[in-house]
Amino acid sequence: MRAFLFALLMLAGLSPAVAGNVSTFELENGLKGVVIEDHRAPVVVHMVWYKAGSADEKRGKSGIAHYLEHLMFKGTDTMAPGELSKTVAANGGSDNAFTSYDYTAYFQRIAADRLPLVMKMEADRMRNLRISPDDAKTELQVILEERAQRTDSNPSALFNEQERAAQFLNSPYGTPVIGWRKEMEGLTRQDALNWYHEYYAPNNAVLVVAGDVKPDEVKALAEKYYGALKPTEDLQPRARPQEPPQRAARHITFRDDRVAQPYLVRSYLAPERNPGDQKRAAALTVLSEILGGNQATSVLGRKLIYGDGTAIYASTYYDGMSIDQTTFNISVMPAKDVSLPEAEKALDHAIEQFLTEGIDPDQFARIKTQVKAAEIYSRDNTQGLARRYGEALASGFSVQDVDAWPDVLTSVTEEDVMAAAHDLFEARNSVTGYAEPASKPLAAAAPAVPPAPAQEVTQ
Amino acid sequence: MRAFLFALLMLAGLSPAVAGNVSTFELENGLKGVVIEDHRAPVVVHMVWYKAGSADEKRGKSGIAHYLEHLMFKGTDTMAPGELSKTVAANGGSDNAFTSYDYTAYFQRIAADRLPLVMKMEADRMRNLRISPDDAKTELQVILEERAQRTDSNPSALFNEQERAAQFLNSPYGTPVIGWRKEMEGLTRQDALNWYHEYYAPNNAVLVVAGDVKPDEVKALAEKYYGALKPTEDLQPRARPQEPPQRAARHITFRDDRVAQPYLVRSYLAPERNPGDQKRAAALTVLSEILGGNQATSVLGRKLIYGDGTAIYASTYYDGMSIDQTTFNISVMPAKDVSLPEAEKALDHAIEQFLTEGIDPDQFARIKTQVKAAEIYSRDNTQGLARRYGEALASGFSVQDVDAWPDVLTSVTEEDVMAAAHDLFEARNSVTGYAEPASKPLAAAAPAVPPAPAQEVTQ
Repeated sequence: MRAFLFALLMLAGLSPAVAGNVSTFELENGLKGVVIEDHRAPVVVHMVWYKAGSADEKRGKSGIAHYLEHLMFKGTDTMAPGELSKTVAANGGSDNAFTSYDYTAYFQRIAADRLPLVMKMEADRMRNLRISPDDAKTELQVILEERAQRTDSNPSALFNEQERAAQFLNSPYGTPVIGWRKEMEGLTRQDALNWYHEYYAPNNAVLVVAGDVKPDEVKALAEKYYGALKPTEDLQPRARPQEPPQRAARHITFRDDRVAQPYLVRSYLAPERNPGDQKRAAALTVLSEILGGNQATSVLGRKLIYGDGTAIYASTYYDGMSIDQTTFNISVMPAKDVSLPEAEKALDHAIEQFLTEGIDPDQFARIKTQVKAAEIYSRDNTQGLARRYGEALASGFSVQDVDAWPDVLTSVTEEDVMAAAHDLFEARNSVTGYAEPASKPLAAAAPAVPPAPAQEVTQ
Repeated sequence: MRAFLFALLMLAGLSPAVAGNVSTFELENGLKGVVIEDHRAPVVVHMVWYKAGSADEKRGKSGIAHYLEHLMFKGTDTMAPGELSKTVAANGGSDNAFTSYDYTAYFQRIAADRLPLVMKMEADRMRNLRISPDDAKTELQVILEERAQRTDSNPSALFNEQERAAQFLNSPYGTPVIGWRKEMEGLTRQDALNWYHEYYAPNNAVLVVAGDVKPDEVKALAEKYYGALKPTEDLQPRARPQEPPQRAARHITFRDDRVAQPYLVRSYLAPERNPGDQKRAAALTVLSEILGGNQATSVLGRKLIYGDGTAIYASTYYDGMSIDQTTFNISVMPAKDVSLPEAEKALDHAIEQFLTEGIDPDQFARIKTQVKAAEIYSRDNTQGLARRYGEALASGFSVQDVDAWPDVLTSVTEEDVMAAAHDLFEARNSVTGYAEPASKPLAAAAPAVPPAPAQEVTQ
């Protein structure tokens, strides 16, 4: 579908409509603001991003970032529990929140003239949250139930959790965002309050407002509602444990009767985008498209699915937006009567061939065009754009880094991609995971297609 | 050699000489004391154990426990750097220290009449350590060099490090005691001082004095030298991150040209001894002896070495003295022309057979006698005994737990062992590691026999 849209755009020679200017400001208390003008519709997206995600959690307190995200809907001195969401809905808007490794974010989408209303409420809960012992208890049950539903009863999610834990020997990226169940059970109201008081502060937040607004107007409103909030003193720089050299290729076997069809994943430790230095990540982004972006035309698709018929599905996933080292992921679902070790061997062979043969110039030109088109096209989605700037700024990047990214992508050469591939495909940095039924396959259990690695937990 | 000694003891029907009474006391500032009387020689072993090991380190600060151990030799207001060790040596004694996951300990062995001297010095550095910026810098280079020598230039150590990192998904036991190099490089004098001030205090220490001393005398001396030291206020209980359910069997492949001869290790997550509840760990201790305690008579020896000739070496290792879940380890070195996967298959087959066949009653009786004899015999070694009580008390056990251990071991039945074995050998709790040369084997590199897992780092 995505490829089809690109094709249409290319054929029509159209440059899609683009949201307007991006401007920034900073308040005296340290709050950073980003305004994205888009006057095509009288709506606004209001987001607050906190530079605090699950990878900032203390050992043994996994899940606290996501727990607090839930508790943020529990009211303040002036708002009753649930009042914020109700008010947004009553005004025809929608709201939600999500927690990831590197950040936690809250957003509302609402008519542009209601911006002061949502800003007032969001500012209120930035510093004045009240958590009653009862609400803390109830919400703990809610997140445990969320884990039960999304992870514990989902074999792909459990498998992914084990794969990541095997991938990261030291980095907190090996810990699931939602938390390990036993540790979640031990989280207390005080843990949540400590987390809140340390990280929920204007000097640790990024405000993003996108839509039918003017920068001056947003800044004035931000001054009014967020300006009076006190920063957290002595906020420590974010310095997470880094990966030591990985010296041994890992292999995990996950057996669960709920896995309907065996599949394998291969992940490699991979460099991330860095502020002012995004070239390697751009090359990996293009590599991912080349290898597994499209079932019909990608290298793995052509070799494994349409070539020797080893697989019925093959894809890759890489997202360089990350504070610390991330992963490059490959998923392969073998054809009937092909074993997982056979599929793995075929995958290794395909990668080896690719490293020797290099890139087909036609495919490269096509993919460069697609990648660039996707970047341009994505600017048409205001909420997606707000999210892109918010995510980047919450992860330590600048607006300039975000703006430069399409050009960095475009300037990637075949040599850059091959160099990145040669560095990436080191067995000792990899984990290969087999997911298979413990005994006989059950009908209608796991999804037919391995899901992309879950990067976040939404409320 | 050990087996030979047991045999001698058994043949002679001798009960070996045993060190005397064990008594305890506690000072008002929380210091716990253990006195082990042994008047056979006019010497004394003086040990101080701190309930602080590498598993208590904060994320990103790996190696701080061991770094501080080194810095403890750097002097106080009244002692120059190195003076403690020099004084001990000048008085005909020896001293050292070691750091492990669960504790850090310091000891001197010296003529009994010099006890006041070493106690005075040890008490002095418990609270009055001075670390100059220069000493901090120099010692950082020393521990980095220690890592270079013991770990980075030792393929077995590197392999072991990766194996443990793969075994523990969440527990800090997956982090090496000496630390990850990058994190060690970032350790500061202030980190060391923070560690010192939090953990080096009488209420976090266990004093063990063994040898030609009287309990009253030791207590009086302890009052004199340690009694005035201030405890750390608000010392938090030791609560480490626990392992989540392990759901996927792991396999790691370590390739290094310095590995002279390929071998494999298999580790399983295993229960540890617990205060008042040591039965399961006792069964695993006996299981380890049965499976791999003796090359000639153990199950793995008979099946893999003398049976089908798959292996030239097979052994097991289990030590239940641990605060959190530990590991049960198996090492196998295949015979020439036997591949690692073949050896692994043979190992799995041997374990399966054992689970079906059960224990040979003659072997069981023999091993029970040996295990008990080893316990009795070990009491003859005063320093070993001091270490045993110190380790146990620093790990949260009581003197009663230590004293009960031989009887718990003796009361283990064949059924206990088989039940423990059935619970232990769960693939999803295991890591299998292959160590092999990257290309061609080099002559005279790695040791001929895989070493037992390193549990501690000695100064």
